[in-house]
Amino acid sequence: MKHICIIGVGLIGGSLALALKEHSAVQRVTGCGRNEGSLNKAIELGVIDDFNTDPAEAVKDCDVVVLAVPMGSMQTLLEQIKPVLKADTVITDVGSAKSSLLDAATEVFGELPEGLVPGHPIAGNENSGVEAAMVDLYQGRRVILTPHKQTSSRALELVKNMWETCGAEVKQMDAGLHDHILAATSHLPHLLAFSLVRELANSPHHDDIFRYAAGGLRDFTRIAESDPVMWRDICLSNKDAILAAVDRYREELDRLQAVVETSDGDSMHSMFSEAHDARAHFRRLLDARERES
Amino acid sequence: MKHICIIGVGLIGGSLALALKEHSAVQRVTGCGRNEGSLNKAIELGVIDDFNTDPAEAVKDCDVVVLAVPMGSMQTLLEQIKPVLKADTVITDVGSAKSSLLDAATEVFGELPEGLVPGHPIAGNENSGVEAAMVDLYQGRRVILTPHKQTSSRALELVKNMWETCGAEVKQMDAGLHDHILAATSHLPHLLAFSLVRELANSPHHDDIFRYAAGGLRDFTRIAESDPVMWRDICLSNKDAILAAVDRYREELDRLQAVVETSDGDSMHSMFSEAHDARAHFRRLLDARERES
Repeated sequence: MKHICIIGVGLIGGSLALALKEHSAVQRVTGCGRNEGSLNKAIELGVIDDFNTDPAEAVKDCDVVVLAVPMGSMQTLLEQIKPVLKADTVITDVGSAKSSLLDAATEVFGELPEGLVPGHPIAGNENSGVEAAMVDLYQGRRVILTPHKQTSSRALELVKNMWETCGAEVKQMDAGLHDHILAATSHLPHLLAFSLVRELANSPHHDDIFRYAAGGLRDFTRIAESDPVMWRDICLSNKDAILAAVDRYREELDRLQAVVETSDGDSMHSMFSEAHDARAHFRRLLDARERES
Repeated sequence: MKHICIIGVGLIGGSLALALKEHSAVQRVTGCGRNEGSLNKAIELGVIDDFNTDPAEAVKDCDVVVLAVPMGSMQTLLEQIKPVLKADTVITDVGSAKSSLLDAATEVFGELPEGLVPGHPIAGNENSGVEAAMVDLYQGRRVILTPHKQTSSRALELVKNMWETCGAEVKQMDAGLHDHILAATSHLPHLLAFSLVRELANSPHHDDIFRYAAGGLRDFTRIAESDPVMWRDICLSNKDAILAAVDRYREELDRLQAVVETSDGDSMHSMFSEAHDARAHFRRLLDARERES
């Protein structure tokens, strides 16, 4: 890659730029965003080489364009850059919902471009902004690519190599399966954490509640501090899969609530044991993956 | 304190013993439990000085008895030790529900003993067993004591001093308020985490789900690996407060689900922002407390 344009130079876009520069995988990184102060900061931090606040200007002459903005801005951006895209420009994104990205692209382009490779790095934390960017954010993490039928193998290989250069393990799957899995493992837990923190904050005893809470609640609610705009857009973009996950979750909560109501200790014990064992299995998977990376 | 008996020498009871020994606050620690192998291990680790598997024998001649067993075993234990308790023996516990402990003691003793000081250290983690005991588990943590009307000031002072010696900050409150607060901050989050892990584990895509999950889910589900017996007993012991907390939580989840269903982005944004700000407030409280300790 000679020249890459990253639209949205925050935690995710900025960390990608840092990692590509670290590995000399790109000659020039152009940033794009609406906040000049933040883009100047990105230059200071060595994250980007230059910037342009106009997307159509920023992507000119780029080999690769990365859309690292909230889901709700994707379609507008695609419309803005469409007139200046070269035939062989590769376009990828980092959004948390993939079917809606394909819908947006279909809306803008009619036929999906060969260069479009929807992607989603499973990385990040509750921080945001370019100051939070880290050169090793993607080290050992998964990146899911959901190429469509017209995606060229050249574009797919280029995006795959880009993420592998950053230390990520790249997987391909259908956009629908991606959305289902992410709804279950990320979007649902965020909604649950948002709900819990709101419930606690609205309690008449909220002062005592936060005063006497311990480390377990800190871990459990960490994701509630994530960016509200990003999560609004995720909920709008992956609505159907999220609502289905909430419904399944409610059925499980119903079952647990019923055994508490009936003081059914045996069922509680077996249900908690199953959860305990499943969590231990999950922890071992994560630990093994960290040892590998 | 000359001679203390800790019934249940696991993470909580064992860490108490280690801290008291570290500060030379006790001359002799007798352990009690059902598993001789575990009690021998506790001697090896220097957690206790000796043990007796018969509670009535173990508590003889002790100044202080600490019940560090799951809530469901409290009443039976009180019955077992009642015949040999001296008039001035101080009894305290570490259970996560306080009204039910008072109910159990009333059942056993008729009138509540002057020496009974119900207590609850807000500490612990997902580990269990004496091998997990840590000398500094209570450093900077809160311990809530819920003395009843007949609790003597001597007994209350002694238990307060015991926990302060371990580095804890001791607070007093009504047993009912304790149960309400703990239901909200600990018991409800555990039920939510158990439910989520069960929902994910029961999914037809569970392999992919655990494979593509990231650090956020690890934190969110950590508490699901807690001891199933302990949590069965907590749910049985604090049932009313827990069910009330689940009901309040469901109302909050209903509200969030409704704005997702109607794609009401503005309401999502304001609800997520409120959760974000409340979590940031909570984080600052915890950080300040850690700096103090």
